[in-house]
Amino acid sequence: MSKEYNRSRFLQEFPSLVEELKEMLVNYGLPEDAINWYEKSLNYNTPGGKLNRGLSVVDTYVILKGYKSIDDLPAETYKKVALLGWCIELLQAYFLVADDMMDKSITRRGQPCWYKVENVNEIAINDAFMLEGAIYMLLKKHFKGDEYYVDLLELFHEVTFQTELGQLLDLITAPEDHVDLSKFSLEKHSFIVIYKTAYYSFYLPVALAMYVAGITSEADLKQAHDVLIPLGEYFQIQDDYLDCFGKPEDIGKIGTDIQDNKCSWVVNTALKIATPEQRKTLDENYGIKNKDTEAVCKALFKEMKIDQLYHEYEEKVATELKAKIANIDESRGFKGDVLTVFLNKVYKRSK
Amino acid sequence: MSKEYNRSRFLQEFPSLVEELKEMLVNYGLPEDAINWYEKSLNYNTPGGKLNRGLSVVDTYVILKGYKSIDDLPAETYKKVALLGWCIELLQAYFLVADDMMDKSITRRGQPCWYKVENVNEIAINDAFMLEGAIYMLLKKHFKGDEYYVDLLELFHEVTFQTELGQLLDLITAPEDHVDLSKFSLEKHSFIVIYKTAYYSFYLPVALAMYVAGITSEADLKQAHDVLIPLGEYFQIQDDYLDCFGKPEDIGKIGTDIQDNKCSWVVNTALKIATPEQRKTLDENYGIKNKDTEAVCKALFKEMKIDQLYHEYEEKVATELKAKIANIDESRGFKGDVLTVFLNKVYKRSK
Repeated sequence: MSKEYNRSRFLQEFPSLVEELKEMLVNYGLPEDAINWYEKSLNYNTPGGKLNRGLSVVDTYVILKGYKSIDDLPAETYKKVALLGWCIELLQAYFLVADDMMDKSITRRGQPCWYKVENVNEIAINDAFMLEGAIYMLLKKHFKGDEYYVDLLELFHEVTFQTELGQLLDLITAPEDHVDLSKFSLEKHSFIVIYKTAYYSFYLPVALAMYVAGITSEADLKQAHDVLIPLGEYFQIQDDYLDCFGKPEDIGKIGTDIQDNKCSWVVNTALKIATPEQRKTLDENYGIKNKDTEAVCKALFKEMKIDQLYHEYEEKVATELKAKIANIDESRGFKGDVLTVFLNKVYKRSK
Repeated sequence: MSKEYNRSRFLQEFPSLVEELKEMLVNYGLPEDAINWYEKSLNYNTPGGKLNRGLSVVDTYVILKGYKSIDDLPAETYKKVALLGWCIELLQAYFLVADDMMDKSITRRGQPCWYKVENVNEIAINDAFMLEGAIYMLLKKHFKGDEYYVDLLELFHEVTFQTELGQLLDLITAPEDHVDLSKFSLEKHSFIVIYKTAYYSFYLPVALAMYVAGITSEADLKQAHDVLIPLGEYFQIQDDYLDCFGKPEDIGKIGTDIQDNKCSWVVNTALKIATPEQRKTLDENYGIKNKDTEAVCKALFKEMKIDQLYHEYEEKVATELKAKIANIDESRGFKGDVLTVFLNKVYKRSK
């Protein structure tokens, strides 16, 4: 399967979903200027990212069903699976529009954040709600007749709520304008990344594909969950590691976690093993918008060999996950290959 | 049924719902400070209003089932119906927390708006999401076994989306900081108030009670809808009228619609019949934060006899609604009395 081909076919589905949503608003009698506004919000905020989450639904379904490529799927099936992928992208769009307002970010995906677009401002809050709302309007239209319809609704509800829980803990643990490292811990970091990222980015795409494929036993969902949640945690820890230790030319950006007071794996690991003196250095230099204090933290992290601890963690978690995948029970139709594909995307990436 | 007794019994249900939600977070392993934060948000934002919407679910159920008072309901049934009432109050809390941020309001229900509370700020956006999320966590826990469970989910999804559509049209038609009366019209006003208010405040409580009572035919839901939506529109038009023409000692506040550039029934009716000269006066004086320009608009509205047009509208719509209610088909179990109770709460109220 060519990655570029899969992506372009997936992207081709989006305009028809926008049309369907617009038609619903026309049927409600919504005046044209508001319909155009919603269309603009959908197009501005939903595509334009890497689409990894949405594409994963399709990829997973293909593997579960034993197809060789997406072209082997019946057209109607492709549309349904891709629609679920777009529902994750809508969920992501909803989170990002809101997160950017909460973080007072300026740009996203190479363009101004939605709330920074002229005339949008606080209306972006309602636009975020309506991006979420689109999910349930589309699910009703396309899945109401399916026996797993209510499972899809509950899955989206629960994963949305879990992501909001992770976001809440992150926001109150690491406010950008008030540094208090005594609030940080590796346990909190683990909760934040699992709830804020792993559920919707790793578990959700696979669980959705499993429902459509008819592989829906509790035991199989648990098998997927028990690999994908630690894998999602590993992915985010890697992200934290790369923000501090990655090369800007590899990761395509300059890390800002130290200056932004982020509750990152790097600082939490350092806090856990810091001497009183090292702790004092962190208290005095972490989370400040200043190049010099940032450099002090970076030097300290290197001195404490946090990068080495990361590589030890990475090898340990990858070995554990490979072992778990090797032991997947495929008797009810679930396939370990689904998880291997995810692991291979994460393991030892440098960008 | 004593209104105060019903209200106090309804209020007694809320703490146990908060405990249930907290327990879910404990089971997720959420750290204590985040659980306390959520508890505070639930208690700060959910009770404290008039609770009309939530109480209506209980009142409607009692009438539909032919009970004399809420004490005749089996305890378990009361709990379920009241829980649906609280779900509407949670939906309302979610809208209000967000609306106050979008409108930059200062106080709500006699206390600072949630986003104005110390340390909350933009976190209120995520808190709003989590107030909405509570609805689906509670519905799953208490209604998953009921055959109408999926109907409840779809009803909340659709009404939420409709309310957001109304809010969107309101926000882009009448931004507080940019007056353009050419965007206003009675048709837009009608859409805004029906979608932003009537669906969740009037139709939703009755439809929820109908599902629990087992009165769920499309025809019966439509009978309720076709009275409650125009009644909700009438209620909001009345609100707009009272903001301009009501006595502060009756309505308990001083109207601010004119200064706030609100897309109110009063200004839309005036725009419809204005001479070019009157229109010019409105263009120059409406939507400005100034006592004098406000007084010019008020005088013009009186000169144009908008209050008289309101009374004519009120008599016409009340007569039509009474006729519709008299013709309700009760053969499948629906009862016109449900609607009469609603109409009597609205008709000729002065506060």
